[in-house]
Amino acid sequence: MAHFIKSELTALGAEIELRELGKQEGTDVDLPPIVLGRYGSDPKKRNILVYGHYDVQPALLEDGWDTEPFQLVEKDGKLIGRGSTDDKGPVMGWMNSIQAHQKAGIELPVNLVMCFEGMEEYGSDGLDDLIRAEKDKFFKGVDATCICDNYWLGTSHPVLTYGIRGCSYYSVTVSGPSADLHSGIFGGMVSEPLIDLTHILSKLVSPQGKILIPGIMDMVVPLTPEEEKLYDDIKYSMDDLYAATGSKTNLFDTEKESLMARWRYPTLSLHGVEGAFSAPGAKTVIPAKVSGKFSIRTVPNITPRELDECVSKYVNKVWKELGSKNKMELKLMHDGMWWLSSPNHWNFEAAKKATKAVWKVDPDFTREGGSIPVTLTFEEELKKNVLLLPMGRGDDGAHSINEKLDLINYINGVKTLSAYLHYAAVQPMAGA
Amino acid sequence: MAHFIKSELTALGAEIELRELGKQEGTDVDLPPIVLGRYGSDPKKRNILVYGHYDVQPALLEDGWDTEPFQLVEKDGKLIGRGSTDDKGPVMGWMNSIQAHQKAGIELPVNLVMCFEGMEEYGSDGLDDLIRAEKDKFFKGVDATCICDNYWLGTSHPVLTYGIRGCSYYSVTVSGPSADLHSGIFGGMVSEPLIDLTHILSKLVSPQGKILIPGIMDMVVPLTPEEEKLYDDIKYSMDDLYAATGSKTNLFDTEKESLMARWRYPTLSLHGVEGAFSAPGAKTVIPAKVSGKFSIRTVPNITPRELDECVSKYVNKVWKELGSKNKMELKLMHDGMWWLSSPNHWNFEAAKKATKAVWKVDPDFTREGGSIPVTLTFEEELKKNVLLLPMGRGDDGAHSINEKLDLINYINGVKTLSAYLHYAAVQPMAGA
Repeated sequence: MAHFIKSELTALGAEIELRELGKQEGTDVDLPPIVLGRYGSDPKKRNILVYGHYDVQPALLEDGWDTEPFQLVEKDGKLIGRGSTDDKGPVMGWMNSIQAHQKAGIELPVNLVMCFEGMEEYGSDGLDDLIRAEKDKFFKGVDATCICDNYWLGTSHPVLTYGIRGCSYYSVTVSGPSADLHSGIFGGMVSEPLIDLTHILSKLVSPQGKILIPGIMDMVVPLTPEEEKLYDDIKYSMDDLYAATGSKTNLFDTEKESLMARWRYPTLSLHGVEGAFSAPGAKTVIPAKVSGKFSIRTVPNITPRELDECVSKYVNKVWKELGSKNKMELKLMHDGMWWLSSPNHWNFEAAKKATKAVWKVDPDFTREGGSIPVTLTFEEELKKNVLLLPMGRGDDGAHSINEKLDLINYINGVKTLSAYLHYAAVQPMAGA
Repeated sequence: MAHFIKSELTALGAEIELRELGKQEGTDVDLPPIVLGRYGSDPKKRNILVYGHYDVQPALLEDGWDTEPFQLVEKDGKLIGRGSTDDKGPVMGWMNSIQAHQKAGIELPVNLVMCFEGMEEYGSDGLDDLIRAEKDKFFKGVDATCICDNYWLGTSHPVLTYGIRGCSYYSVTVSGPSADLHSGIFGGMVSEPLIDLTHILSKLVSPQGKILIPGIMDMVVPLTPEEEKLYDDIKYSMDDLYAATGSKTNLFDTEKESLMARWRYPTLSLHGVEGAFSAPGAKTVIPAKVSGKFSIRTVPNITPRELDECVSKYVNKVWKELGSKNKMELKLMHDGMWWLSSPNHWNFEAAKKATKAVWKVDPDFTREGGSIPVTLTFEEELKKNVLLLPMGRGDDGAHSINEKLDLINYINGVKTLSAYLHYAAVQPMAGA
């Protein structure tokens, strides 16, 4: 993917460098390189940094896809395939914007600084270090950043996003026997790792979504009446949620509570178990070593370090209470900090005008439940405003089967990205 | 495998029929045929029925095998490969016994009636019906049955087995959204099936192995002082358990308690979760539909029907208490009844003499924690004694990685099976 992007952008006349990052920690696997690019270097123009990622979530046809996940299919006005909306589609959008300007004979009104990484879905390994190392070199002179890697809240109204949650991803591994055992022979004689793991996982979060780990909720900033009022105007209905999830399994009955759960409160999700029997059918095995995967989405003012202390203390306490002879290991697989900005800035103003020009409506200003850890790093290191300008809709199915991007969202999305560059070139520089 | 067995036995002069069983219930998949065979039909000889199975548990090199699981490897005096001990090896043993008699020019002293199935690891689909249908036809005139499909208790002392546990295998499926969801976007807004499932599974059994479903222990026959005394003479030590499991994760500190847990008490094991993230690495998914797999090993006087009532009532009660908007479905995937016989029978006497002749020691009389549901059916339908005469050792790793059968156990095993046929031909018919 990195080489593909390099060859496409080079053909368009951009200067591209693939920055190698060495091996992934604890492995012999090369990290995918970061694509650093620059299109234009006119000192009279503003420098707009755009970010995207070319890596995607895992996907198998057997997961339930209607089409081969790694072949793009256009059907019923939708572009279907893994990465269509998260985030290969938006990355292509920037390329198409350059291409469209060239074909129309219109000069790009800004210098485009590009950063496309390949480890976003695994915690952006290596990117933070690169940004810190290059802030006064490759990234020198950046005036504002635009990230196209999230989604509209619903399915019909464009948004601009000024906040995202952080994410700390954990594995908890329980091991006992040296190899899997026959449950007929050893069932009842030995302590089963999967039984222990199930007990640990069930004590992390309630079926109603309440995090059972003490200390986490204490770190959340209290809700003020002013903040609560912001939720009143958001164009979002419970029907949007029902449509996006294909079910009525909502934990809350109102839009406001649902959005707060997504934007301003931490949540804990269970993702799966590695090492146990996971195929269809029946296998009478006692798995020897099993790892439960869970993640916690974080919000102001939870820090990954303090969160980690809470999780570690609690899981170890629960483990001790189980009284098992097996071994348990808790591991923080990756973490990323939440980010909360202010939309009162010329960068957002440019994106608002671009949205209005293309979609004929004012965008909603939203926060995001997902995590793009690099957002905060760009803002802190470059000390310039970061804007999240999404292309896809809330029902795109990122990370799920049959991921799609509506064709109109792609076309109008490329138009919006392009218009944003034009407004960003001329918008008076104001805002915090 | 069925065709391979047919061709080998036909070449040895046996009459073989492959009995087709139609489709597996609820699928379009043909059930593997049952191999019915007969070697010899001398009306003056006794008819000994031998049973084995040619199907095996699933196995992948990635599970942690040192060698390709479906290629037999001989190393350090061990035959290594999936099915070496459970149960392809023992099935081959009967063929080699016939072959050895032929090469030595010795007539087989009995008529050998053979029944080798291909669905044992999935509850012996279709076999019970076949036995009932054929009890007065193909199986007419059988004098005794010998099943070679279990293991010595330890690693050095041969055993004969007169009891086995039953097994009821369940799946509990929780489903919510119509497709997997991104935990960043929907975490905290919707009820997560895997969280619900984890809560259900954790309420089935304690880390100490205590079954938490009411009613099951009430059905277990009380321990009498006479029965308790039987455990005193069994050649088994905690070191055997440590060696077989490669760990000291024993739930009980004494041999007697450990063997009782394996032989005379029910146990509940968790096997895995289908539908959740099960690969290495980190995936921030909310799985839409997950199935937990668990099984209960049953003992006198638990019946599958009454057990099913207890499980169903309890799981539904737990589900109701969770208060989830997701859907839950409990399914009995297969069940098989326990079996408890008396070793005071000429069939066991013949096997005891054979063991003594080959191994130079008297066998221990044991029960088995695993399940061979067809044992009971053979006994009930044919109304003749059933003997379990194992070939492999307690550390063979059936159902696990690196499954093996010691070469000496195979060679002496074939000798023991052969000697058994000779003693069974002449042993005075006595016993209950």
